[in-house]
Parts: sequence; structure tokens; C-alpha cells
Amino acid sequence: MERHFQRDLEQLKANVIKMGSAVEQNLVDALDAVLKNDPTLASKVISSDGKINKFEIEIDNGVVDLLALQQPVASDLRLILAIQKINNDLERIGDHAVNIAESAFRLTETPQDEPLLEIPNMAKIAKEMFQLALDAFIHLNAQLAQSVLESDDRIDSLNRAMNSQVVKFIKKDLKSIEGGLELLRISRNLERVADLTTNIAEEVIFHTQARIVKHHAEDK
Amino acid sequence: MERHFQRDLEQLKANVIKMGSAVEQNLVDALDAVLKNDPTLASKVISSDGKINKFEIEIDNGVVDLLALQQPVASDLRLILAIQKINNDLERIGDHAVNIAESAFRLTETPQDEPLLEIPNMAKIAKEMFQLALDAFIHLNAQLAQSVLESDDRIDSLNRAMNSQVVKFIKKDLKSIEGGLELLRISRNLERVADLTTNIAEEVIFHTQARIVKHHAEDK
Repeated sequence: MERHFQRDLEQLKANVIKMGSAVEQNLVDALDAVLKNDPTLASKVISSDGKINKFEIEIDNGVVDLLALQQPVASDLRLILAIQKINNDLERIGDHAVNIAESAFRLTETPQDEPLLEIPNMAKIAKEMFQLALDAFIHLNAQLAQSVLESDDRIDSLNRAMNSQVVKFIKKDLKSIEGGLELLRISRNLERVADLTTNIAEEVIFHTQARIVKHHAEDK
Repeated sequence: MERHFQRDLEQLKANVIKMGSAVEQNLVDALDAVLKNDPTLASKVISSDGKINKFEIEIDNGVVDLLALQQPVASDLRLILAIQKINNDLERIGDHAVNIAESAFRLTETPQDEPLLEIPNMAKIAKEMFQLALDAFIHLNAQLAQSVLESDDRIDSLNRAMNSQVVKFIKKDLKSIEGGLELLRISRNLERVADLTTNIAEEVIFHTQARIVKHHAEDK
């Protein structure tokens, strides 16, 4: 029984890592679609999302099976509950990648004399955060996870900066309004990706250190 | 053991209902703050969010305890896993209520000659959806939950309508740009509230009917 359980738990963890890689690929492609103005990459992201949704259902079922058949306790139980949450966070990040890809599409249809402002910068940080969070999960490494948390504030402040930059831009040239709103949509989706990535890192910390770092801002 | 378990499970469910009521109050107050241009209500929402975060941690711990100590199977296990997800969804809806309250604040500082466009309409639907979803959870009633799913499309299309209305508005009067962007923020937060409410309804359906309705759009 115990050996079966460890094998099943490893399998569940491996599925989360596979799903994480698929989500990472979609995030990278969606951002490249924006940065390189590439509608082909954008459609690739949109058509790959079904695969991520299938992963989510599979992992959810794996969680139920493992809890029902094996009745794990303590550390294993916490890992399985963390997996359930991370699964949900990953699926949502996949949804945001689709939103970004859809924005990339619409941007190819609007006049392209607008700069991308802080988007390239935010894209770089969000991708790094996601890779770190996935690595933190793979190695159940709280230190890696901690460094994800520290990047979230940078994305938040860049998102705020985007707002005032776009307002200035539209005031200067009213024709840029549709493109400007599209950039704000991308910025906001990146901010949500960073939030969800932060949740994943918090789950890893919670599992490895059995302490709750959520709502940490409130303690400041 | 079995009697203890049923009592603890009822207690956990009661806590979710209490949390749901607190979230509902914050959502209603945040929307009233926008509709009535009332900064006092907005600050009430912001200061009440800590209570919701405490509920989330308490319920999360309750889930772990119940799974670790009682090792439930079948229907009870599914209910506890649904509760974990609903807990997370409720906390996020609480966060969106805070975002809406912050927008309400900023709107009181911008010139108020703008109409609220589709916001009152969206607010009404979102509140009704939330009440229905909470009722569906209280009575574990799949039919109530199903009616929540049907409203989500209406919010989505109103959110899209808001976009084109605000663009028109700004094009007519560039001074309305800050207020217009604020309305788009509220619209988007309502769209997210409707999404998360839909998730709660899907969890109820999943629990009561043991079938997965998530990603239903893909099957169309």
C-alpha cells in the first residue's frame, strides 16, 4: 500500500510539472506574440489551452483518488492539498495567457505606431517569476519560492506605471485609444499572472515550512 | 467517530456560509459605494477584508484537520474538496470587492459628470448571481447552481459593451479619460466576480451530480 501510494503521489506531482511546462510555453508564446506582433503564435496559444484544461481535470481526479484510496496524513496530505490549489492556479494562468494572446491578435489589427511601454519589462519579470515558482515546486524549495514573492511588488508598480503612461499617450494622440486600452489589458493580465504565480510560491512555502505566508502583507 | 465527523463537517459548512455572507456584504457595499458615490461605504469594505482573509485561513485549516483526522471517503470527501475550492473563490471575490471599493474612492475624486453606463445593470446581475450561488451551496441544490451559469454570458457581453461605450465617451470628451478607465476597472472586476461565482456554482453541481461541468464551453 505505502509503495503504491508513493508511486501514485510521484505520478501526480509529475503531472503537475507537465501541466506547468505547458502553461509556461503558452505564457512565453503569448508574450512573444505581443512583443513580435505575431498572430500565428497567438493562435497557437488559443488552440493549446484545451490541453491545459484536460490536465486540470486529470489532476483534480488524481487528487480525489489519492485521498479516497490511500487516506494519507500529515506531510503527504498537505502536499496533495497544495497540488489541488496549484493545479487551479496553473489553469488560471493558462486562461490569462489566452487573454494576452487575444490582445496580441487585436493589436495586429490596430495601427502599430505605439510603443509597448513597460510591457517588455513586465513580460520578462513575469516569465522569470513563473519559472522560479515551477522550480520551487519541483524541488519543494522554500528559498526559491521566497524569491518569487519579492518580485510581485515590481510587477504591481509597473502595472500602475502603465496606467499613467497610457493615459498620457491617449491625451497626446486620441487615435491611440484602442491600442492603449489593449496594452492596459495585457498589463493587467500580467499582473494577475504574477499574483497567481505568487500563490503557487506561497503554497510551496506552506507545504515545506508548514506555515502560512498568505495575507503576509497584513502583518506589515 | 462518525458522529464527530458529521458535526465537524457541518461546522465547516457553516463557516463557509458565514464567510459567504461577509463576502456578499462587502460586494453589496462596494457596489453601493460606486452607485451612490459614497466614500464611507468604500472604506468600510476595505477595512472588512481582513475578516474575510481570516475566514479563509480558518476554513483551510478545518479542511486539513477533517481530512487528516477523519479520512472521509466518497461523497463527504468530494464535499470537503469542493469547500476548499469555494473557500478560495470566496476570498478572491472579496479581493475584487476591495478593488471595486478602491475604484469608488478614486471616482469620488474625479469630475462626476459621467454616467455609470452599464455598471448598475452589471452590479444587479452580479449580486443576484452571488446570492443564487451561495443558496445553491447552502442547500446543495444543482438546479439553483445551474441558473448561475446561465447569467455569466450576460455579464461578459455587458463587459464588452462597456468597452466600446467608454471608448466613445472618451473620444467625445478627453477629460473623461480617468473616470472612463475607472469604470472599465469596475466592469472588469464585476466580470471576474461573475466568473468566480460561476466556479462556485460549478463546484456545487460537481458535488451534487458528481459530474464535471467545468470547461463546458469547449464541448459546445
